[in-house]
Amino acid sequence: MPDLPAHHLPPADRTVFFVSDGTGITAETFGHSVLTQFELRFKEVRLPFIDTLDKAYEAVREINQAYERDGKRPIVFSTLVKAELSSVVRHSKGMHMDLIQTFVEPLEQELGIKSTHTIGRSHNIANSDEYKNRIEAINFSLAHDDGQSNQNLAAADVILVGVSRSGKTPTSLYLAMQYGVKAANYPLIPEDFERNKLPSGLSPYKKKLFGLSITPDRLTEVRNERRPGSKYAALEQCRYEVNEAEKMMRREGIRWMSSTAKSIEEIATMILQEIKSDKRAY
Amino acid sequence: MPDLPAHHLPPADRTVFFVSDGTGITAETFGHSVLTQFELRFKEVRLPFIDTLDKAYEAVREINQAYERDGKRPIVFSTLVKAELSSVVRHSKGMHMDLIQTFVEPLEQELGIKSTHTIGRSHNIANSDEYKNRIEAINFSLAHDDGQSNQNLAAADVILVGVSRSGKTPTSLYLAMQYGVKAANYPLIPEDFERNKLPSGLSPYKKKLFGLSITPDRLTEVRNERRPGSKYAALEQCRYEVNEAEKMMRREGIRWMSSTAKSIEEIATMILQEIKSDKRAY
Repeated sequence: MPDLPAHHLPPADRTVFFVSDGTGITAETFGHSVLTQFELRFKEVRLPFIDTLDKAYEAVREINQAYERDGKRPIVFSTLVKAELSSVVRHSKGMHMDLIQTFVEPLEQELGIKSTHTIGRSHNIANSDEYKNRIEAINFSLAHDDGQSNQNLAAADVILVGVSRSGKTPTSLYLAMQYGVKAANYPLIPEDFERNKLPSGLSPYKKKLFGLSITPDRLTEVRNERRPGSKYAALEQCRYEVNEAEKMMRREGIRWMSSTAKSIEEIATMILQEIKSDKRAY
Repeated sequence: MPDLPAHHLPPADRTVFFVSDGTGITAETFGHSVLTQFELRFKEVRLPFIDTLDKAYEAVREINQAYERDGKRPIVFSTLVKAELSSVVRHSKGMHMDLIQTFVEPLEQELGIKSTHTIGRSHNIANSDEYKNRIEAINFSLAHDDGQSNQNLAAADVILVGVSRSGKTPTSLYLAMQYGVKAANYPLIPEDFERNKLPSGLSPYKKKLFGLSITPDRLTEVRNERRPGSKYAALEQCRYEVNEAEKMMRREGIRWMSSTAKSIEEIATMILQEIKSDKRAY
């Protein structure tokens, strides 16, 4: 869990606030990305749903308290859209980084129209088609997790394959949740290697398959966390499965990549590029 | 799926590029949030993993082609960290919005240190504890989806309850994936209402429970998409279940909120605020 007091760590160098009239996800994602460029420890506080003047004044109080406590100006990343809220928070004792105003004004000039200054539109789309697609994709990916179902595989945008614990499940869910991609996933297991054949349900959908592999060293680590000391987790077993899986993917002409040391976001982005360029080529 | 040619829609007003040396998720999330302030249609193109000079020049070519095609300057949101890559893309024919430089330089002054200019650090954390927590939370949430298991509920950070299709599953997965929160979820079903009791496995964990409700009108819509014309989806049935569920949550002193017209991100953020303030109070 983020943001809980961590008693065993040294104190943070600065407090950072993410202030938003919506969820604060944009401010936080963006702020993180900028702050990781600095080798300091930051204490992060998200202040979401700051959508009234009262809440804006309360946010200022919290920022100013951090200033008193730390003896250093807090950093404030703000995505407040309404000018009256933004101008309240701007006058805190923090260093104000106004993500919206900084870019909205030049864009108004470029586009030749005024911005709507509407609050929280980016996530407030619970009735849009895009949003419905995401929910449908999540349900699809759940129903098709770990080879649970062969039904309706024709509707999949992509079918991930790979040995157990190669990263298929979190990647499928991330593709669904973030991009509305219907991602099924299917394990490659020792029985498949003995038969020397892809799982039979998959053969009609070879073009949708995308493989994930992983180094045996990393795989044994991951499997040992789940089932310490098991045969399943033994390095020898991991070497065998990875080797057989890669051989099978090469033989069947399945595109694949290594998930080792990559985050879910990176793996998902790479897969998305692949399946998009397929569609473009049609 | 995003970004595919949509033949039935009118042409977009502008092309927008999200250029990044990493996944481009930050540039895209942020750019979306700014662009939703403008009532125009944008054609969005993500260019991730632009981490060499060759790829930077290729990105410039693509941006310039969009300019030729549209007859209007494309908008370019860029999170390129390396100065030599950024300065290549800056000289495209697009309008360049440099998210990193705009904020990194003032921060260097404020913090009194130089930024590391390291590429893709924000997602490149596949071995960090935070990342492991997220993966563990995803596995936990999957294993405890839809009341599948009573085992190990003591390890849950939160247990979502509510009638079928009130938004529990996507919210649990989002909490796990985005925040490393172990979120179980448990349906409230007609049998529970007849017995007039919470599902028995839940009583030891009442403080972890968080309810989701939904208006009967919206619920009948959602259920009809899944099982058209069924008793399960009938307005009368939805009214009954929602009414009973809310009565039960009130009686048992369970905190709850309405998920109607809220996005997963909004629901998750609200729940996170609640469970964090619990922990702070300990």
